[in-house]
Amino acid sequence: MERLARGTPMFSGADLAAIINEAALAATMADKDYVETADLEEARDKVRWGRAKKSRVIDEDDRKITAYHEAGHAFVQSVLKDADPLHKVSIIPRGPYGGATFALPEKDRLHYTKRYCMALLQVCFGGRIAEEMFCDDISSGAQADIQQATSIARQMILTWGMSEKLGPISYEPDSGLRDMVYIIPSEREYSEKTAEEIDSEVKRLVDQAYKKAKELIEANKDKLEKIAKALLKYETLDADDVKLILEGGELDKPTVSDLLAAERAKNKRPNSEQKGQ
Amino acid sequence: MERLARGTPMFSGADLAAIINEAALAATMADKDYVETADLEEARDKVRWGRAKKSRVIDEDDRKITAYHEAGHAFVQSVLKDADPLHKVSIIPRGPYGGATFALPEKDRLHYTKRYCMALLQVCFGGRIAEEMFCDDISSGAQADIQQATSIARQMILTWGMSEKLGPISYEPDSGLRDMVYIIPSEREYSEKTAEEIDSEVKRLVDQAYKKAKELIEANKDKLEKIAKALLKYETLDADDVKLILEGGELDKPTVSDLLAAERAKNKRPNSEQKGQ
Amino acid sequence: MERLARGTPMFSGADLAAIINEAALAATMADKDYVETADLEEARDKVRWGRAKKSRVIDEDDRKITAYHEAGHAFVQSVLKDADPLHKVSIIPRGPYGGATFALPEKDRLHYTKRYCMALLQVCFGGRIAEEMFCDDISSGAQADIQQATSIARQMILTWGMSEKLGPISYEPDSGLRDMVYIIPSEREYSEKTAEEIDSEVKRLVDQAYKKAKELIEANKDKLEKIAKALLKYETLDADDVKLILEGGELDKPTVSDLLAAERAKNKRPNSEQKGQ
Amino acid sequence: MERLARGTPMFSGADLAAIINEAALAATMADKDYVETADLEEARDKVRWGRAKKSRVIDEDDRKITAYHEAGHAFVQSVLKDADPLHKVSIIPRGPYGGATFALPEKDRLHYTKRYCMALLQVCFGGRIAEEMFCDDISSGAQADIQQATSIARQMILTWGMSEKLGPISYEPDSGLRDMVYIIPSEREYSEKTAEEIDSEVKRLVDQAYKKAKELIEANKDKLEKIAKALLKYETLDADDVKLILEGGELDKPTVSDLLAAERAKNKRPNSEQKGQ
Amino acid sequence: MERLARGTPMFSGADLAAIINEAALAATMADKDYVETADLEEARDKVRWGRAKKSRVIDEDDRKITAYHEAGHAFVQSVLKDADPLHKVSIIPRGPYGGATFALPEKDRLHYTKRYCMALLQVCFGGRIAEEMFCDDISSGAQADIQQATSIARQMILTWGMSEKLGPISYEPDSGLRDMVYIIPSEREYSEKTAEEIDSEVKRLVDQAYKKAKELIEANKDKLEKIAKALLKYETLDADDVKLILEGGELDKPTVSDLLAAERAKNKRPNSEQKGQ
Amino acid sequence: MERLARGTPMFSGADLAAIINEAALAATMADKDYVETADLEEARDKVRWGRAKKSRVIDEDDRKITAYHEAGHAFVQSVLKDADPLHKVSIIPRGPYGGATFALPEKDRLHYTKRYCMALLQVCFGGRIAEEMFCDDISSGAQADIQQATSIARQMILTWGMSEKLGPISYEPDSGLRDMVYIIPSEREYSEKTAEEIDSEVKRLVDQAYKKAKELIEANKDKLEKIAKALLKYETLDADDVKLILEGGELDKPTVSDLLAAERAKNKRPNSEQKGQ
Repeated sequence: MERLARGTPMFSGADLAAIINEAALAATMADKDYVETADLEEARDKVRWGRAKKSRVIDEDDRKITAYHEAGHAFVQSVLKDADPLHKVSIIPRGPYGGATFALPEKDRLHYTKRYCMALLQVCFGGRIAEEMFCDDISSGAQADIQQATSIARQMILTWGMSEKLGPISYEPDSGLRDMVYIIPSEREYSEKTAEEIDSEVKRLVDQAYKKAKELIEANKDKLEKIAKALLKYETLDADDVKLILEGGELDKPTVSDLLAAERAKNKRPNSEQKGQ
Repeated sequence: MERLARGTPMFSGADLAAIINEAALAATMADKDYVETADLEEARDKVRWGRAKKSRVIDEDDRKITAYHEAGHAFVQSVLKDADPLHKVSIIPRGPYGGATFALPEKDRLHYTKRYCMALLQVCFGGRIAEEMFCDDISSGAQADIQQATSIARQMILTWGMSEKLGPISYEPDSGLRDMVYIIPSEREYSEKTAEEIDSEVKRLVDQAYKKAKELIEANKDKLEKIAKALLKYETLDADDVKLILEGGELDKPTVSDLLAAERAKNKRPNSEQKGQ
Repeated sequence: MERLARGTPMFSGADLAAIINEAALAATMADKDYVETADLEEARDKVRWGRAKKSRVIDEDDRKITAYHEAGHAFVQSVLKDADPLHKVSIIPRGPYGGATFALPEKDRLHYTKRYCMALLQVCFGGRIAEEMFCDDISSGAQADIQQATSIARQMILTWGMSEKLGPISYEPDSGLRDMVYIIPSEREYSEKTAEEIDSEVKRLVDQAYKKAKELIEANKDKLEKIAKALLKYETLDADDVKLILEGGELDKPTVSDLLAAERAKNKRPNSEQKGQ
Repeated sequence: MERLARGTPMFSGADLAAIINEAALAATMADKDYVETADLEEARDKVRWGRAKKSRVIDEDDRKITAYHEAGHAFVQSVLKDADPLHKVSIIPRGPYGGATFALPEKDRLHYTKRYCMALLQVCFGGRIAEEMFCDDISSGAQADIQQATSIARQMILTWGMSEKLGPISYEPDSGLRDMVYIIPSEREYSEKTAEEIDSEVKRLVDQAYKKAKELIEANKDKLEKIAKALLKYETLDADDVKLILEGGELDKPTVSDLLAAERAKNKRPNSEQKGQ
Repeated sequence: MERLARGTPMFSGADLAAIINEAALAATMADKDYVETADLEEARDKVRWGRAKKSRVIDEDDRKITAYHEAGHAFVQSVLKDADPLHKVSIIPRGPYGGATFALPEKDRLHYTKRYCMALLQVCFGGRIAEEMFCDDISSGAQADIQQATSIARQMILTWGMSEKLGPISYEPDSGLRDMVYIIPSEREYSEKTAEEIDSEVKRLVDQAYKKAKELIEANKDKLEKIAKALLKYETLDADDVKLILEGGELDKPTVSDLLAAERAKNKRPNSEQKGQ
Repeated sequence: MERLARGTPMFSGADLAAIINEAALAATMADKDYVETADLEEARDKVRWGRAKKSRVIDEDDRKITAYHEAGHAFVQSVLKDADPLHKVSIIPRGPYGGATFALPEKDRLHYTKRYCMALLQVCFGGRIAEEMFCDDISSGAQADIQQATSIARQMILTWGMSEKLGPISYEPDSGLRDMVYIIPSEREYSEKTAEEIDSEVKRLVDQAYKKAKELIEANKDKLEKIAKALLKYETLDADDVKLILEGGELDKPTVSDLLAAERAKNKRPNSEQKGQ
């Protein structure tokens, strides 16, 4: 229950109520006597990212790309001590996404330190790097990661004064004004030369994080590959699964094929019972 | 039916209903007992691009330019393995277009890979290159292709981080903000120097694709010419027709002249029958 | 009638109805039993550019400038094989214009080829070049020509990829967006360096067309002068008149003075008849 | 009457009616039996620029500056053959202006030639140059002249293609668009480098006209001074007065002092008559 | 009364009525039988800048800064022959201002000459220079002066053609357009290079005026100090007071302390009288 | 009471009433017979920054960062003679802030001197410098400080003419216009070169203040550390507490643990009493 609580930062009371309802409903539908953690997690994901598209026929190429991409995120998230710990990783498509890696913020953060930001950037790039290394091509699947990384790097430099070269100066328009006239994008207040320095610092930060993450993954190609293969086999891995894989262990849980077979079997039984009526 | 399904991505239920209606109507008008694939295809094209303008008197020069232009698209689409397969190519004018080449997406793509994007660019330029090579002039007919190619190349670089020089950085304004204030074009956030690098990378990608497509066509001038000539003769070619031409075969189907003659004959008969009444 | 049809591209049904009405009215006013081509042409021009200002007292200097200016357009239009053929040329002022040269598009063009565009540019500059060569001064009368030439040259480069230096890239904002937010002028997406290259290519195209047109006119000064003098004498010349002049023939039709004398005579007669009543 | 007609270009019917009314009223007020040209002129000026502020107490320094400033305009207007002829010059303040020089367009111009524009620029600068030369200081009184000269020079270059360096290219935004969205100032379409060339050409044209006008005035200092002194004495000079002065003649008309004295005398008489009743 | 009239330029009839009312009221409140000049002046200042904040407790540091600042303005205003004459200077805070120096325009100016503008700039900087020289620090108190000086210098260069380097060219957008669409800030029409030259000319003018004013004050440190000390003692000085000080005389009028003591005495008396009833 | 008054600048009457109400309520809730200064201060902070979030579980790392950050501000505020004196410093989170340092303006300032501004900048940077020095990382906690420092530095240069290099020139758009059209961000009026100089001057001012503050803190590391440790122990320190610490004294007041223990004890008693009923 505490894991779920930590996994629902920023949820409103209404969101939480919806999660409980969804979970209870799902447990009832599955003829369970009590709501399990899995029901709550599934309900949480459904409320946040949309219903899992299990029925969607995923092309095998796309599925492979997704598996390596998410394995890249999950591996970096797991091993960087400055990052939030991994919560789970999945290649079940939800909404517009082919898969997702979830972190588990341990606490409400009052401050984002520079080290934490650098770790976030490396986690962002884990997906693209894995595609590059294992799929021999790169794809549009990194779009959201690239947007997030750019946004973090710019905030570090423009708002939080974390670039030594640009110094503790705010390069954002005055927030007071921005609130008042929020439909008009504020004109930047700095010169072209400063704009160049900002671009160059953003690039430096991003390249540094990309390089670090790439070195980390290159030194652990086999581990990332094991996570990717497990994802193709099990579709979803939680933090303990990933930990076991990283420590060289073997997972002992039903594969997607097992689950599908079981489901098919279960779906048949009621039918035969109905026939018997 | 599956071909049609694959050929109607993004169609709404209402669109699909309209297509079925149009096809049924057309079949009835033609005194058929059942709806044929051709009726469905024609109905689909009519719903999407407007009624075929067969009555429009096309200048022979324009018709020749269109035939080589579309043959250029169709040839590149057919032979590039990273591109979607060709569906059909036609020089029957619809709406503002003199002709059209249709691809048949094999699947819902979750990811656009860099190789797929490069193939798309080459298909785009196939038309202009064919005009240049066979018509000894270039025309405004490539306007939509140039827009599409520019848009793809910019997205590869600005959004998907597919330029090594510019790196995995998003050069688009924050999409969150853009949604909120979508009537105001966002000011770009990068410097002039970065803008120059973006222009130079867009040009590099476009030039590279143009050069590749040109080499491909130059090495297969005779094949493209055969497709163009078949278009002038038959007006519409489906994937099998083009395949046969590329393999050196001869098409065995009625020409436009045959069809016109048949139609004229058919139009006469009812009249004579009416006379007979 | 076909000439008139070709001379009314883009006219709406209402426009065409207005032309027929005007022509019928004019014919009735002139006590004709049937509507002549001249009535239809006059009606067409009146609907499109406004009533002919015959009563307007034109300064002789202005009249001379207009005659040489229009003769410049008409000469280039007549002799360039890539241009549309000349329809007629006139120095009767209509609306804000001192005179006008009309082309006769032979067909609905699906494509604008580069050669056609280059011919259009030369026709545009014919007027200014004639002023420069024969009037020893240049005037604001070329304003509309300069606007049209600039607009064509920019479209060739920005939209139709007709500059080898800038390549098959669209430098216009995405048309989709522009339609949606058409009241906001879109910010250009390219760098200053690209803007410079565009300016330089526009200048190159324009200078090239200007130079070609100037050479053409310089080699045929006598012919242009004959057209100008015929314009001063007859006010309006049709394609056949101009052809005759270019072939060294003499026009055999009433001059403006003849027409004015005839009109004066005609205006007197009814009066004397009325007196006779 | 023809002079007045030529002096009221662009006046509406209502304006002309107002002028006639004002003139008739003024003539009646002055116990005249008929309306004189002077009444019509005064009425025209009043309708156009506001009531003459004779009662306004003008500082002698300001009056001297105005006299030399207007004499500068009037002198250049009178002697440049490419300019419109002078109509009259006055230092009676009207509206926000201390004085005014009026030209008399001889005709409705269809074309503005380059030579006419260059003459206009020289007339504009006549005022400032005279201040510089005779008042040993320059003043804000040239603001409207500077605006007009800048506007003409820019139009010559941006719209009328009258700069050889920039060529027959339109540097104004498409007028079609501007009409449609006229509340949004259009973004310029050219590069910084072109903007520099435009600035440099505007400066070149302006400097050339300023230099020519200065040479003209320097060679005729005595004549300009005579006009200025006559203005201080008579307040208003018409074209004939100025011609006489330029030819070395002496004006023979009542001075301002004479007029004031006469007015004072006239104002007294009715009073004494009233006393006599 | 004439002094007051000259001190109320641009006042509306309603403003003047309000001033008379205020003055009458004040005179009545003070048991005077007639309205004195001082009542009218006080009323004028109150209507224009707000009620004098005598009760506001002013920090001694702030009061000293204000006294030297205003003494700087008053000194330069008094001694520069091209400037308007001083009217009065005060360190009584009104509205947002700690004090104020008033000039007395001698006349309605039709022209602002370059020399008058240069004198205005020097008066503007008198305050800041005095702070620098006597208070060993500079303060935000010069904000309004800096704005005014910048605005004058820009107008001299951009509108009045008073920079030889930039010439008689208007660098303001067309005022006609600006009036029509006044809510949209017009885009500047000149190039970056011209913008640099404008900045450099503004700086040159401002620096020149600052230097001149500084030399003037440095050569008269004792005189300025005397004015400042008199301000601290008497709070308000009129032109005659300042003239006397500059000529080395001694003021003979009640100090602030005298006035406060008198007021306190007066406030007591009515009370004792009331007690007596 | 005077301390409170000085600590509530810019509060409206309604704000003050709310503070009194809150304080009275709090005193009543605590069974006090009179309102203490502490009640008023708490009420003031609650009205201004929101309810103290004592219940919020603060991560120890965040708490340490906050303590050193606030100690940095408090130390610089206390020792710089040009700055306002320290009022109190607290690490009790309120609203979005982890803690806060309060200054006590001694007076309503009419002028902001350059020295005062430079002191303000140093106080701003005290927090970030302390993080850097004692936490071996920097955090987003300095965001508001960086914004404030940037805003002050820009105002010094752009509005108050406090940069010798840029001179007494206003680089803000005309405030008159800005008031009228305040929803449109004004276009800057200066050139790129000036924009670069402004950026460079802002950076110079900021770097200078940062360097000065860093030297000050480096020379007093032990003192700052003592304040930080006291904050961790007592959560809130007033000016006297800090003064005592800086002078090497020991605080003698209940720690947070003491207060929590006391509160827990008090909360138990009423319950036992209730049980007793």
